[in-house]
Amino acid sequence: MNERLQLGIIGAGRIGKLHAQNIMHLIPEAKIKILADILAEQDQIKNWAKDLGIPRITTDYRELLTDPEIGAVVICSSTDTHADLIIAAARAGKHIFCEKPIDLSAAKIKTALQAVKEANVKLQIGFNRRFDHNHRSVKEAVLAGKIGEPQLIQITSRDPAPPPLEYVKVSGGLFLDMTIHDFDMARFLAGSEVVAVYAAGGVLVDPAIGAAGDIDTAVVTLKFANGAIGVINNSRQAAYGYDQRVEVFGSKGSVLDRNDTPSTAVISTAAGVVGEKPRYFFLERYNESFVNEMKAFVAAVLTGQATPVGGFDGLQSVLIARAALKSLAENRPVKIEEID
Amino acid sequence: MNERLQLGIIGAGRIGKLHAQNIMHLIPEAKIKILADILAEQDQIKNWAKDLGIPRITTDYRELLTDPEIGAVVICSSTDTHADLIIAAARAGKHIFCEKPIDLSAAKIKTALQAVKEANVKLQIGFNRRFDHNHRSVKEAVLAGKIGEPQLIQITSRDPAPPPLEYVKVSGGLFLDMTIHDFDMARFLAGSEVVAVYAAGGVLVDPAIGAAGDIDTAVVTLKFANGAIGVINNSRQAAYGYDQRVEVFGSKGSVLDRNDTPSTAVISTAAGVVGEKPRYFFLERYNESFVNEMKAFVAAVLTGQATPVGGFDGLQSVLIARAALKSLAENRPVKIEEID
Amino acid sequence: MNERLQLGIIGAGRIGKLHAQNIMHLIPEAKIKILADILAEQDQIKNWAKDLGIPRITTDYRELLTDPEIGAVVICSSTDTHADLIIAAARAGKHIFCEKPIDLSAAKIKTALQAVKEANVKLQIGFNRRFDHNHRSVKEAVLAGKIGEPQLIQITSRDPAPPPLEYVKVSGGLFLDMTIHDFDMARFLAGSEVVAVYAAGGVLVDPAIGAAGDIDTAVVTLKFANGAIGVINNSRQAAYGYDQRVEVFGSKGSVLDRNDTPSTAVISTAAGVVGEKPRYFFLERYNESFVNEMKAFVAAVLTGQATPVGGFDGLQSVLIARAALKSLAENRPVKIEEID
Amino acid sequence: MNERLQLGIIGAGRIGKLHAQNIMHLIPEAKIKILADILAEQDQIKNWAKDLGIPRITTDYRELLTDPEIGAVVICSSTDTHADLIIAAARAGKHIFCEKPIDLSAAKIKTALQAVKEANVKLQIGFNRRFDHNHRSVKEAVLAGKIGEPQLIQITSRDPAPPPLEYVKVSGGLFLDMTIHDFDMARFLAGSEVVAVYAAGGVLVDPAIGAAGDIDTAVVTLKFANGAIGVINNSRQAAYGYDQRVEVFGSKGSVLDRNDTPSTAVISTAAGVVGEKPRYFFLERYNESFVNEMKAFVAAVLTGQATPVGGFDGLQSVLIARAALKSLAENRPVKIEEID
Repeated sequence: MNERLQLGIIGAGRIGKLHAQNIMHLIPEAKIKILADILAEQDQIKNWAKDLGIPRITTDYRELLTDPEIGAVVICSSTDTHADLIIAAARAGKHIFCEKPIDLSAAKIKTALQAVKEANVKLQIGFNRRFDHNHRSVKEAVLAGKIGEPQLIQITSRDPAPPPLEYVKVSGGLFLDMTIHDFDMARFLAGSEVVAVYAAGGVLVDPAIGAAGDIDTAVVTLKFANGAIGVINNSRQAAYGYDQRVEVFGSKGSVLDRNDTPSTAVISTAAGVVGEKPRYFFLERYNESFVNEMKAFVAAVLTGQATPVGGFDGLQSVLIARAALKSLAENRPVKIEEID
Repeated sequence: MNERLQLGIIGAGRIGKLHAQNIMHLIPEAKIKILADILAEQDQIKNWAKDLGIPRITTDYRELLTDPEIGAVVICSSTDTHADLIIAAARAGKHIFCEKPIDLSAAKIKTALQAVKEANVKLQIGFNRRFDHNHRSVKEAVLAGKIGEPQLIQITSRDPAPPPLEYVKVSGGLFLDMTIHDFDMARFLAGSEVVAVYAAGGVLVDPAIGAAGDIDTAVVTLKFANGAIGVINNSRQAAYGYDQRVEVFGSKGSVLDRNDTPSTAVISTAAGVVGEKPRYFFLERYNESFVNEMKAFVAAVLTGQATPVGGFDGLQSVLIARAALKSLAENRPVKIEEID
Repeated sequence: MNERLQLGIIGAGRIGKLHAQNIMHLIPEAKIKILADILAEQDQIKNWAKDLGIPRITTDYRELLTDPEIGAVVICSSTDTHADLIIAAARAGKHIFCEKPIDLSAAKIKTALQAVKEANVKLQIGFNRRFDHNHRSVKEAVLAGKIGEPQLIQITSRDPAPPPLEYVKVSGGLFLDMTIHDFDMARFLAGSEVVAVYAAGGVLVDPAIGAAGDIDTAVVTLKFANGAIGVINNSRQAAYGYDQRVEVFGSKGSVLDRNDTPSTAVISTAAGVVGEKPRYFFLERYNESFVNEMKAFVAAVLTGQATPVGGFDGLQSVLIARAALKSLAENRPVKIEEID
Repeated sequence: MNERLQLGIIGAGRIGKLHAQNIMHLIPEAKIKILADILAEQDQIKNWAKDLGIPRITTDYRELLTDPEIGAVVICSSTDTHADLIIAAARAGKHIFCEKPIDLSAAKIKTALQAVKEANVKLQIGFNRRFDHNHRSVKEAVLAGKIGEPQLIQITSRDPAPPPLEYVKVSGGLFLDMTIHDFDMARFLAGSEVVAVYAAGGVLVDPAIGAAGDIDTAVVTLKFANGAIGVINNSRQAAYGYDQRVEVFGSKGSVLDRNDTPSTAVISTAAGVVGEKPRYFFLERYNESFVNEMKAFVAAVLTGQATPVGGFDGLQSVLIARAALKSLAENRPVKIEEID
């Protein structure tokens, strides 16, 4: 086996731990040399890292950036730190995998992307859903021309339960926190850029979410540069679980996917014909996609090819989310070019 | 068997013939006494009526209205005649079944409804899809409280092929000709009135449709009085056939239906796992619903109960369509109350 | 319209009434001139026939046979009368549609078929399932070569509830009463004759069925002349309704069908993803097939072509059923040639 | 973390490598200390073991048995060595995981099981399909009483392509090589022992398989002690891939599973509605089950509980296969008690 890519990872929360486990167990081409986390002195995290085989753990992320053996960093810390860490990593010459969103501010994102450009390092944003087996099959059918020119893109994206209210308050709101994945998916599937957005939204799940200044239910219409029209529907609470379906309709037909279920078992009784509910939430549903996106990042770094989801994608999704917020506030369609 | 309801039918085009056949073959509680059609002197239509067992055929619809044995009329003539025929029938004291739309003008509809009200006759509008087995099952699940309070209504409604351009030019446009069924379905499923509309549309199927001043592809967002949000997507051309699916998502879950197919056969070969396309078009797909709506009308007349789809429903769907047209023209959400 | 085929119908039980209604309402090429039933003097049946437009009703079936205008008879009386009525009708020169089975005795069937042959009249046996939209699609895929050479035929055939015990006692048993349809379907799908049968069966639904000398659950293996193997599984009681599925597996793939449901609606809640149960029983499930088989019979008579299911088919299914009975009794595979 | 279970593994063919990777990457509770393989001196295998983190590799399996730190052995060598290795491992006091079948001879299996019993070590047989998410869901529904008492068990099990002829010749034949999994599954699902077997089989895929003394297509009927009836259909070649479906039908209903597919994407075009083929073969389809069975074995050893699939299961499946062979040869149902 060739030399492995040495990685540093910043942040060992839920998503950081997931990436670390995937890298150490399932991606033989890479390994983590240093983990930085603000809680790195606690036993629990130390033991976790040791069991996983991570050689070093620190509270100071700068140790990763100055280690010459480390070729790339994986940024999984809180959103407000992403842009600064990208800049620091870029200046240190490290390739970068960063969780979404890059930042809630378009200006800050642009600054970070400028640093990446100047340092000529690779940047991949954690839009893991592009690497999901179902959505990828849909995309491949589109790319293969099976449905002709895309005309309608339809995304159903519903969470099984709202996040804690404390999280809602700092999340940036439904569009920047949840729909942002769908905005990226819509661009991915349409193969075209969004030029205008109209958002309808409401508080139908929990009044406390409204009191916190957010919405929990939305329908967002997207107009694409190529003339196609997209529509996303969101809810923070689907009683039956995590509902993740997309459809692309085009001049030659349609391709859609359905939810994954824990099994294909179907029970028929006097009460009806009962199948399983969708996989509960993103860790179960998109489990494999997290591995696939990281493999793609490692491969891009090792081969020198472009990353499959770059800084431009990270920027666009935030611009669309901001346009949706403005549309909701002003109850009118908003052009992306209005946002800046 | 009790005395049958004697019907007069006006118009023996495609839909008129369908209703006539359904009544004569499948609805033993009613029979057609007189058929009025402007082509009633042609042999073809005369023979058709005779074979079907219709005793009398005339070019003059007034014969139906003055026949005291006739209890109700079925109006299947061209849209521009509907309102006047409703008024004449109402004044003659006949109950009325009228194909949709009542008229393209809201003012004219209101005049017709006033005549119906004054005559105290029954009026049913031909929104046959409410009587479809699939959509009705969805509605019944909603009524039974199985999905809780409706929050999102989603309708996919795509024709297999555009109508002839000559028809497009006089049709009133996509919203009044095609989406009008979906507007009615959305109200039916939501159990609430539409208060505002935002329409995005384009010419993606055939430039000639655009040249004729119409669109062929649309996404329409609906806001309901109860806070629910609806979204309809339309195309004039689905390569795989007639695509007719609805979903209602609510606080306790979701209910959706899928397309009907000519058979359930599935062929698995090296090329894939292949099922049948949807039933081709509305005559195949909604075949049974046309029988059911007419049975419901006959039953309403015979029992004295209210018709299941009345003049108010006929008016609302046109108001929503007009709001959608205005929204498309002005690229802004339009309130229903703006239309008059 | 051309002259219609005049029919006589013998027997106005459940299936006789169904055929009569289908002919009078849905098959314009034919009409019933005389109905013969042993209860023809009762008001209920007289009124029923009158409402349906049948001109004459009699207790004496010979009136049909001597009426020169009647071209064909439809035999729907009890099984024990079929063979004699076929012989009488054949000698009267009438074409014959006869419900299955022709008789429980192979010898008696052969005598009846001989009479048909000598009179050179057409005979169709009421194996309606061949005319079902789902099974016919499966057959068409096989005929079109889509799955290559058939190798395995699999039939799941389960009733929603057992018939009354009194019926069980005179039915000839599961194989002659219920599986006989599946034996015919297996031959139809395989395109080859059954040469040997092995039957495993048990009393798992109701001990009273066992006490009556019958079984209620069975798995029957069929060997075909072309080397293909078939397997049928039966139960008299499926809690979820009427389960009717077939599969043909061949050198290039497989084709199978699924149950029909009253609607395609699917309800997703915390309790699961629930679809509808199969259509309850044969009148709902195979409704259309009864119309189709009668249309095919009328067309065969009017055009002079062969009927699609003839006397040979009626004989074979009884021979297979008899072989299955012998196999069950002797617990060994039985060749069809052993039966006579 | 507690001390891990130290394992020795014997045989690094396809299945041995799979187990080794699963243990080293996905089962933190265990690790492999020694790998024994007859090719252990070749660089390829040495490098593979080193990359995987296996500390030692040897050509002599006895090193595993004498290492006091090793608590259990995983036997993945060729079938003809299984029984002797089980005996040796048992005498060395090691717990044992052994691939199926234990042996092709019932007598030899009994000797091996006797050794296991005398040594009081644990034995698990590699019937991985019991650990598949779909089949397990079916079993759980049965155990939960959802379908009442099992009455019919139906298993469709078809390979995508026959194995090489050289393999066919030494495999023991279809029943001992392929159907053996289905025999175990049938017992698992029925919750009852097979008492008699009737096998119908043929050479429909490839005459060379027949020339080698084997069959490639079969339908096997099973009678269970509790009165239930089972039926398995097999083919060595399904053009559309690996077809693995089971159904249990009982007094309260039915539970069945469907094939897994690489994605849920469905493409609708003028050509039809096309879904994906089943996952190609057992490594893709049953991937997760191999991990689950090994986790279950490790847990049984660490907790002292019984293994979920024991020696008795390994013996029964071979007895059923032998009865099926005898049934096929003699064309009669064969009781399990006849085999010995």
